[in-house]
Amino acid sequence: MTERGRDEFDVIARLFAPLATDPAARALADDAALLGDLVITTDAIVEGVHFLANDPIETVARKALRVNLSDLAAKGAAPLYYLLTLAWPAGRRAGQLDGFAAGLAHDQRTFALSLLGGDTTSTDGPLVVAVTMLGKAGLATPARAGAAPGDELWVSGSIGDGGLGLAALRGEIFAPEDFDYLVGRYRLPEPRVALAPLIAAEAHAAMDLSDGLAADARKLAAASGVAAEIDAERMPLSDAAARWLAQREPAKGLAALAGFGDDYEILFAASPARAGAIAEAARQAGAPVVRIGKIKAGHGVEVLHAGAPLALGPGGYAHRIGR
Amino acid sequence: MTERGRDEFDVIARLFAPLATDPAARALADDAALLGDLVITTDAIVEGVHFLANDPIETVARKALRVNLSDLAAKGAAPLYYLLTLAWPAGRRAGQLDGFAAGLAHDQRTFALSLLGGDTTSTDGPLVVAVTMLGKAGLATPARAGAAPGDELWVSGSIGDGGLGLAALRGEIFAPEDFDYLVGRYRLPEPRVALAPLIAAEAHAAMDLSDGLAADARKLAAASGVAAEIDAERMPLSDAAARWLAQREPAKGLAALAGFGDDYEILFAASPARAGAIAEAARQAGAPVVRIGKIKAGHGVEVLHAGAPLALGPGGYAHRIGR
Repeated sequence: MTERGRDEFDVIARLFAPLATDPAARALADDAALLGDLVITTDAIVEGVHFLANDPIETVARKALRVNLSDLAAKGAAPLYYLLTLAWPAGRRAGQLDGFAAGLAHDQRTFALSLLGGDTTSTDGPLVVAVTMLGKAGLATPARAGAAPGDELWVSGSIGDGGLGLAALRGEIFAPEDFDYLVGRYRLPEPRVALAPLIAAEAHAAMDLSDGLAADARKLAAASGVAAEIDAERMPLSDAAARWLAQREPAKGLAALAGFGDDYEILFAASPARAGAIAEAARQAGAPVVRIGKIKAGHGVEVLHAGAPLALGPGGYAHRIGR
Repeated sequence: MTERGRDEFDVIARLFAPLATDPAARALADDAALLGDLVITTDAIVEGVHFLANDPIETVARKALRVNLSDLAAKGAAPLYYLLTLAWPAGRRAGQLDGFAAGLAHDQRTFALSLLGGDTTSTDGPLVVAVTMLGKAGLATPARAGAAPGDELWVSGSIGDGGLGLAALRGEIFAPEDFDYLVGRYRLPEPRVALAPLIAAEAHAAMDLSDGLAADARKLAAASGVAAEIDAERMPLSDAAARWLAQREPAKGLAALAGFGDDYEILFAASPARAGAIAEAARQAGAPVVRIGKIKAGHGVEVLHAGAPLALGPGGYAHRIGR
């Protein structure tokens, strides 16, 4: 089960895609459905898989919203509403529900969301938080498919922090000065809502990064029927990630950063002719984006370091908790 | 935790209702939201709470759809789409996913639904199936609130079968000739989709029955600011439930049937002047409805038997599995 990402992808394609008989569902091949001018997405987070049992309950609630906000942003949509299904462990203190609701309230204000409906049940198992989120479509709603040879590949924010944060929480890396920052990036991803208008206007193809830059670029390329080439030196790194990388053999460290999941940044393909406009729009939105590579004819993904492809692992899921 | 229903109600009211800042959410006081002409509802079913671990996986999938279809029908809406979130136990055979998808496909055909999106994750805990369903609103979208003194109270189908089915599965009742029928009613509730146009046209207030007739009538009455009076002799019973009742002290047996959960029938209030039209519309829809009582000024619910109120338990949840 270390390759849960691929298992999941196969299952969805083989069993569930035939059930998505309406074009609005985009054959489940995308991160969201487009129904009229509503963009609709659903993502669940599970204790022990997407967050740790002792993560603060406020951040669990906020993360559940943010992984869905990230999907909307990657489709160029503005958040409107969400529905919430909670399977709440019988053994969790009831007082934690207050913290959970406070976390929701906080991010509702931050992202101009409101709760549309919900269902709360108890469970003997881990906490499961399932969110369905509705957004207002932008000028366009880019799919994963749509990237063409000649396009440039962009990414928002910084790469690898989420995975380093999880590793820090698990005691797998020692980075005392960066612990709080990295753990914060794992527990509270920053959905790039401010970039949604830019994505809607400029992206030929887009998706958010949950399974790792390399694995997700591979998916975008596959959906578009093209190849993606990423320049490892251009991968945007936080100061914390740069410090971590500086202590490692560069090729292995860069491959690890490109493999970590939980980034929730946006990957998108756009025309080189629009590079200046994209950079300016991102500056005005106050969210960083950088060009990290290009789209070519072919298939698959290569992350180049010093002119040669890095050896990539099976994907970011290997770095998730448990499986 | 035997009164989970009330706990849940309190939690939703106190913590989550303030998050539902948009009128579309109906302050979470209803079974669905109304967004434009879309009716949106969400309900999850959890292994060990809403179904048994060894229930056939096809019926688990179909029940997850049907509890949501039932909510739409009670709001007078026609099914359109659903989104599905699965937390799939690592220990379940992968082949069960095929059966799960087959169950979905079956009920999609039956109820003219299609899958709009989904998310599948693994879990170390029980199977959790969360569904968000979208329907097309009818002429009106009745809420739980809206019943007025003088209204008559109607219910569809038959009462108590779901709870008897669960009791049969758990070996708590012995009814060999009715076992298959009752277990079928528990595992595969019959959502009254055919009644949706009637509900939209005639109901002053409506909801589906998941926590038991008495407990849910109490909720409808509370939302409407009125009292509900149910005539126990008028409660529609299947032949199987009638046989079970015949072996019991009538007052206790009727109170139990009014307390069982998992009926997924529709309870609604309507004008006495419309009784003939309602009966005729139900006949044409091929779904049985009967008048079981009336709405009065006051508060609470009474189930009358031989002119006196039955002693009611704390609610249907006591009959759910586990809690």
